[in-house]
Amino acid sequence: MADSSSSSPATNKLWGGRFAAGPAAIMERINASIGFDKILYRQDIAGSKAHCAMLVKQGIIPAADGAAIQAGLDRVLAEIEAGQFEFRVDREDIHMNVEARLAELIGPSAGRLHTARSRNDQVATDFRLWLRDAIDQLDIDLKALQAALIARAEEHSGTILPGMTHLQAAQPVTLGHHLLAYVEMLGRDRGRFVDARKRLNENPLGSAALAGTPYPIDRDLTSQLLGFDRPTANSLDAVSDRDFALEFLAGASILGMHLSRLAEEIVLWCSDRFRFIRLSDAFSTGSSIMPQKRNPDAAELVRAKVGRTLGNFTALMMVMKGLPLAYSKDMQDDKEPVFEAVETLSLSLAAMTGMIGDMQVQNAAMQQATLGGFLTATDLADYLVMQLGVPFREAHHITGRAVALAEARGVRLDELELSDFQTLHPEIRQDVHSVLTVEGSAGARQSFGGTAPDRVVAAVAQAKARFL
Amino acid sequence: MADSSSSSPATNKLWGGRFAAGPAAIMERINASIGFDKILYRQDIAGSKAHCAMLVKQGIIPAADGAAIQAGLDRVLAEIEAGQFEFRVDREDIHMNVEARLAELIGPSAGRLHTARSRNDQVATDFRLWLRDAIDQLDIDLKALQAALIARAEEHSGTILPGMTHLQAAQPVTLGHHLLAYVEMLGRDRGRFVDARKRLNENPLGSAALAGTPYPIDRDLTSQLLGFDRPTANSLDAVSDRDFALEFLAGASILGMHLSRLAEEIVLWCSDRFRFIRLSDAFSTGSSIMPQKRNPDAAELVRAKVGRTLGNFTALMMVMKGLPLAYSKDMQDDKEPVFEAVETLSLSLAAMTGMIGDMQVQNAAMQQATLGGFLTATDLADYLVMQLGVPFREAHHITGRAVALAEARGVRLDELELSDFQTLHPEIRQDVHSVLTVEGSAGARQSFGGTAPDRVVAAVAQAKARFL
Amino acid sequence: MADSSSSSPATNKLWGGRFAAGPAAIMERINASIGFDKILYRQDIAGSKAHCAMLVKQGIIPAADGAAIQAGLDRVLAEIEAGQFEFRVDREDIHMNVEARLAELIGPSAGRLHTARSRNDQVATDFRLWLRDAIDQLDIDLKALQAALIARAEEHSGTILPGMTHLQAAQPVTLGHHLLAYVEMLGRDRGRFVDARKRLNENPLGSAALAGTPYPIDRDLTSQLLGFDRPTANSLDAVSDRDFALEFLAGASILGMHLSRLAEEIVLWCSDRFRFIRLSDAFSTGSSIMPQKRNPDAAELVRAKVGRTLGNFTALMMVMKGLPLAYSKDMQDDKEPVFEAVETLSLSLAAMTGMIGDMQVQNAAMQQATLGGFLTATDLADYLVMQLGVPFREAHHITGRAVALAEARGVRLDELELSDFQTLHPEIRQDVHSVLTVEGSAGARQSFGGTAPDRVVAAVAQAKARFL
Amino acid sequence: MADSSSSSPATNKLWGGRFAAGPAAIMERINASIGFDKILYRQDIAGSKAHCAMLVKQGIIPAADGAAIQAGLDRVLAEIEAGQFEFRVDREDIHMNVEARLAELIGPSAGRLHTARSRNDQVATDFRLWLRDAIDQLDIDLKALQAALIARAEEHSGTILPGMTHLQAAQPVTLGHHLLAYVEMLGRDRGRFVDARKRLNENPLGSAALAGTPYPIDRDLTSQLLGFDRPTANSLDAVSDRDFALEFLAGASILGMHLSRLAEEIVLWCSDRFRFIRLSDAFSTGSSIMPQKRNPDAAELVRAKVGRTLGNFTALMMVMKGLPLAYSKDMQDDKEPVFEAVETLSLSLAAMTGMIGDMQVQNAAMQQATLGGFLTATDLADYLVMQLGVPFREAHHITGRAVALAEARGVRLDELELSDFQTLHPEIRQDVHSVLTVEGSAGARQSFGGTAPDRVVAAVAQAKARFL
Repeated sequence: MADSSSSSPATNKLWGGRFAAGPAAIMERINASIGFDKILYRQDIAGSKAHCAMLVKQGIIPAADGAAIQAGLDRVLAEIEAGQFEFRVDREDIHMNVEARLAELIGPSAGRLHTARSRNDQVATDFRLWLRDAIDQLDIDLKALQAALIARAEEHSGTILPGMTHLQAAQPVTLGHHLLAYVEMLGRDRGRFVDARKRLNENPLGSAALAGTPYPIDRDLTSQLLGFDRPTANSLDAVSDRDFALEFLAGASILGMHLSRLAEEIVLWCSDRFRFIRLSDAFSTGSSIMPQKRNPDAAELVRAKVGRTLGNFTALMMVMKGLPLAYSKDMQDDKEPVFEAVETLSLSLAAMTGMIGDMQVQNAAMQQATLGGFLTATDLADYLVMQLGVPFREAHHITGRAVALAEARGVRLDELELSDFQTLHPEIRQDVHSVLTVEGSAGARQSFGGTAPDRVVAAVAQAKARFL
Repeated sequence: MADSSSSSPATNKLWGGRFAAGPAAIMERINASIGFDKILYRQDIAGSKAHCAMLVKQGIIPAADGAAIQAGLDRVLAEIEAGQFEFRVDREDIHMNVEARLAELIGPSAGRLHTARSRNDQVATDFRLWLRDAIDQLDIDLKALQAALIARAEEHSGTILPGMTHLQAAQPVTLGHHLLAYVEMLGRDRGRFVDARKRLNENPLGSAALAGTPYPIDRDLTSQLLGFDRPTANSLDAVSDRDFALEFLAGASILGMHLSRLAEEIVLWCSDRFRFIRLSDAFSTGSSIMPQKRNPDAAELVRAKVGRTLGNFTALMMVMKGLPLAYSKDMQDDKEPVFEAVETLSLSLAAMTGMIGDMQVQNAAMQQATLGGFLTATDLADYLVMQLGVPFREAHHITGRAVALAEARGVRLDELELSDFQTLHPEIRQDVHSVLTVEGSAGARQSFGGTAPDRVVAAVAQAKARFL
Repeated sequence: MADSSSSSPATNKLWGGRFAAGPAAIMERINASIGFDKILYRQDIAGSKAHCAMLVKQGIIPAADGAAIQAGLDRVLAEIEAGQFEFRVDREDIHMNVEARLAELIGPSAGRLHTARSRNDQVATDFRLWLRDAIDQLDIDLKALQAALIARAEEHSGTILPGMTHLQAAQPVTLGHHLLAYVEMLGRDRGRFVDARKRLNENPLGSAALAGTPYPIDRDLTSQLLGFDRPTANSLDAVSDRDFALEFLAGASILGMHLSRLAEEIVLWCSDRFRFIRLSDAFSTGSSIMPQKRNPDAAELVRAKVGRTLGNFTALMMVMKGLPLAYSKDMQDDKEPVFEAVETLSLSLAAMTGMIGDMQVQNAAMQQATLGGFLTATDLADYLVMQLGVPFREAHHITGRAVALAEARGVRLDELELSDFQTLHPEIRQDVHSVLTVEGSAGARQSFGGTAPDRVVAAVAQAKARFL
Repeated sequence: MADSSSSSPATNKLWGGRFAAGPAAIMERINASIGFDKILYRQDIAGSKAHCAMLVKQGIIPAADGAAIQAGLDRVLAEIEAGQFEFRVDREDIHMNVEARLAELIGPSAGRLHTARSRNDQVATDFRLWLRDAIDQLDIDLKALQAALIARAEEHSGTILPGMTHLQAAQPVTLGHHLLAYVEMLGRDRGRFVDARKRLNENPLGSAALAGTPYPIDRDLTSQLLGFDRPTANSLDAVSDRDFALEFLAGASILGMHLSRLAEEIVLWCSDRFRFIRLSDAFSTGSSIMPQKRNPDAAELVRAKVGRTLGNFTALMMVMKGLPLAYSKDMQDDKEPVFEAVETLSLSLAAMTGMIGDMQVQNAAMQQATLGGFLTATDLADYLVMQLGVPFREAHHITGRAVALAEARGVRLDELELSDFQTLHPEIRQDVHSVLTVEGSAGARQSFGGTAPDRVVAAVAQAKARFL
């Protein structure tokens, strides 16, 4: 794309032949964007239809020409959707491809469509419309993944596994609680996209090449017709701004990072050192000779994809750095990073939603893994504080001695005798044993946001209300 | 920082000596964060005071101990602010430094403070509080830059310079309009920070190490005391989440990019090929022997700084990629990127606000630069369309011929005779000349968001209302 | 790609049907790499042919089977090159597509080809071979750009333009000297690629899935057949290593940055504030109504492309971060970044070579731009030091006064009278004027690496010897 | 740093007071680099001493002045190393700090030192010298880590653990082989730094501000005195080039990525799901109440650090993008990224070397983990091919049936009876059992680069010869 006064001319019948020589082949290759911007055809036509309607209403072009243009654009759209449209590289971009075809279809009236606009505001409009649609679809995909996680969390509100810090088992947590952590992350991702959508939903159309236009246009009307909240406030900014793409890519990168974390957990949980879950044939690849080997390829690929998306953000940041106003051709490199990121995320979300629904939780293996390692030691310290009023730091020390004793005996903490405990603190009572089981430990974490099964049941209900 | 059960112990008197050997010197160096996280002291103490107040109110610790803790924390704060506090590397981080000093000051009661919390939720709380403050200050700095731009825009609502696309003069624009484009960009930056602030303003305190806590804590109370909107909903997420830092860094990168664009324009405008503006001694460096050389060092440095900020975003994205839940020590590398970005932006905004206020606009040079190059050619085409009903594409061709004629004659477009115009289109009237001056051209761009001086006057008023 | 024991099986006739269900459609979409790795077909077949020849020579497979395989592979290659090969997504990747077709062509003998190898070492081999070829082609492209620059430098060894620092005119330099600066940069780029090529030119084939193989293979033989310098030394490393791709992408990013700098200069020089050069129709796009406007679109696009390449490096770094040994499916995301970077650079180099050859240097405009601004002030200071023995810092101060005097008089430095100079320092003689012209200034800079025209002539000769 | 003719003047006594007003405080803060570039003091003084010696030898400055300067510079160096030097922000950078102090010490003779040079070539020289030293030190650190890895590899040439792909146990490998994979990676890292060092080792001194100098300097002499291989060939390039910093940062990023992978393995191997190794107190942090919890903090921090280094590369790439020749102030932002990366790597390498030496290998746990999962299934297939001439793909199918049989029986593959095997293929003989043990499997992988213990012994010897 380029501004309305800029094009590789010899090949471009529409606006004439000032240039003696045609563009070099290399120029055509580097310059043409139709290879990737044809994806914008629906938005380009919608924008033209709204622009045309406004021009007619404002008396800028005759109603008859407007009607011809509307009909012609409908036909172009139909041709594209039917796969009968020839996208031509010598017509550079989607805008010129559509307009040139329109001229073939309806003749000179087509020449009135480009009144009071430029390719600079046109491409900004198309791209915002496309990204708005993409965000709306991603929101649906994100909700679907949240729904899958919430469903599994509900099912496993009481399933216990070792909660880890530093990849070391730390305290028992419930699987439902663990899965809901990702529901929170995805909720923030959705929030970021909602905010980005609000900010992008302003209409650049009517900014023309860079300075606005002397025609008596009605930008509120085109805004309304295209579902924009309002027209952009400054024409120079409107044609030079790619914040909406960058803000999207930043949010997409953070979302990609969340998915990489969940994917890492799936890879770990599938490994034969964990075996916490099992993926079905549909989401893993196997070995014909090593049956234990169900490679979690889909999870690995999702884990990798954040690279691509962060790379796309980096790419567009680099493009925009240090560009003076207004439009420069550099900005044509804004689209592929966004298109790629949308496709990558869409695929990653679908794969992840599939895996979450698919995974077979190995409750016994999870439970078994909580038994070693004195995961309830913190609970003993808390018992001393809460029941006996011991200051926390002292309770900590006593607990250390209890663990040393159990370790020496080769037993779990809850397998120590009451008399053993009383050598550490005389006031410890029989009820200490109930807080030292993994179920007791998890069940006691009733603080808001905590891991207790009934907390998870409540959190599931709240998550449904907030997100689904 | 690390979770409450994790520390390099031999040097850490507070919680004992299970380890036979002290940590290697290298370990101390890589592990300790006090070198950079001491900047969080105010937030760390505020968080501890709120936590303590809540523990007392909930009956979790005795009121007398609570009072001693509060007084002790106030004294620690006073010592730090007076520069009388010794930050010790062997106490690792800000949390342990404060708590250890508290213990020296008030004795064993200090041991009750860490009840029902962990360093994992504590650091997340401190960092959010710090970043919230930083965002609030940046909003003030951004507003100051907007105010400087709006003031200059108001002053120059009618000053005309060549509007450029592809760094080629394209159409006359007003300087006020040009400066307001940056006001729009900064407005979006502020919006992004406002949204990021909303999302970060949730209270992780009470999430404890990872799973919540069995104590009957009141997280709404600590939220209220610390100005958080609500407690975080999931403890595993709360201690593992660094979205707030990433979202900030992404917004900071985009802001840095905007500043790089404005800085580029200042560098261009100061160059002896443009001389559109002049920076005073305060914002340039000179040469004792080349008086024309007022190097715009401040602008160049601002232009460079976006690199640092994007690098910081990249760094933290890389850190977080693929980390399983919950807290891992990797996350300790979250702070320096954010601290650096805040300092870089703060400095860049101050420098830019200074330069905008400082720059002496060279109206004559700007005006002169609009005269060559047929910048009003589009206006002739628009005249043909609007006044004579010629279709736009045909008007475009006629205009091309007019320009060729003027070029052959060596005159400006508005210096052609009426008879010359009439050879191109017989219905052209005398009033054509008025649309072909640069003032006429700019003045005609009355569309919403356009460059006309009275539009700029209105846009200045709106910008004041929206942003100041 | 995946290890030899890993595949989505139900669709994969070659190694059977242990899985009950076929892979989900989403899995096929995320998993299959044939969409982009088919570009490796030539290398894949070459690798198989070398492997087969070695297997025969070592007596691992029968000679007759080997002959059938060789003939079959030749036929597969012919089919692909003739456009008669159907790449099938259900056969996942290039390796399976080739092998499956081979089986169709020659029957069960095809099953012997995969003896003593795995897809893990196979893909590493293919990718290295492909990148080696790409680097060789880029070296040719780089040399062509150097040749274009050297040719223009030779032509313009004595053309003077203002040398700039901070985009402020500083001292006169010759255009030849300026262009040769880029020849140096490109020389380093070539050096980096040469070094990268050396490091990548080791043969992973025979590393098998991860641990080597019990077959009596001869890895030196396959190395020799494929032009590798030696076999890789460690099988786990060989299948897990993507350094060669990263090192290439890093060098490609730096090269992209160099091109962005040269492109920036072209954009500046084409702008109507400079008009130092003019690009022909072939490398710019124009406006039918603004004849001065020859938008340097190709230069702008080249300037932008470094974003894409840096993004590709970032992407692959992110993919590889934190991956344990050996092969993980994440690594499948290594190829698209490299393929894209190669294509981007190839196009950028061609466009830049075209522009350098094409640009019409506007000597008069360059010369004119050197006259203002006292660009020879440093020469006066150097005269005082060299001819009169004044310490440099003092000479600096005297020069400052001379410039002030000239500025007050409104004349150039070389237009001051001898008597004027003598008021500043009594020993200044008539010969001072000769050092104060821009020709005198540039001509005097005879130090090695300096800008003097005869230095440039010598440097051109050296550059030809070093690079062409 | 800035070019010689550029400084914030009012505070800078050395070159006078053309400016009416002093620089704003904000300008001083953004402009001054002394806060970080003082680290270059040794290189700055060495560069000045070489420059001075050359000036004397060429007769450009008097020998007496030269002697005074040399003595003065020695004293400045002594003052700095004794901690008695006051670095002043109003003297901006290391160059002006040194020169101003020199002037205080020796008077006006100091003014001769800056003859025939500029801060532009001076800083480029200093920075190259500093980075050359840093690379030499990193090479030593890298060798130390290789030595540690080789020593443990030698010790564990026969220790068997499950080799993994996709984090799924795949085939038995030896620990020595696994560790040597990292020795290969580090060897490539060293090679990249060696190549970068060669490319950087050219002398910019004498390029002056941008264009060379008219003084009869001898750049070969300064090159020789400073240990450079040759002078840079083009002065414009020499003052504008930061390739050496970028190439270093790229290599540093790849090295950081390698360390992140090894760190990830340490984290995994330390986790209670693996327990393959144990880190001592010196390299982990513990929990006073959970004895199993030895958090591998050092490994986690090393894993994170690649983020910082990649961020530094990104930052400097962004800075350099699109800068026209020659020096711009943006380039001042080149140093902090490099200084940070060097410090980060130095610390990471030390920590990693410590951990490798420190880790206690849990042979039994590793061995145990190889027993499940039919890790020797590939060996059965290879037996069928090698001993019985079965085509590989068919051998694969037979093996699948053997595994299914063993799985159904609940036995290991090597626990099946000969008669069982013979139902699958009648020619299988008793010797099949020896290839199906993990020791048999690993021992058979005798191909060059393979995992067999005696291969590892040989590889250790070769690694010592190549790297130590």
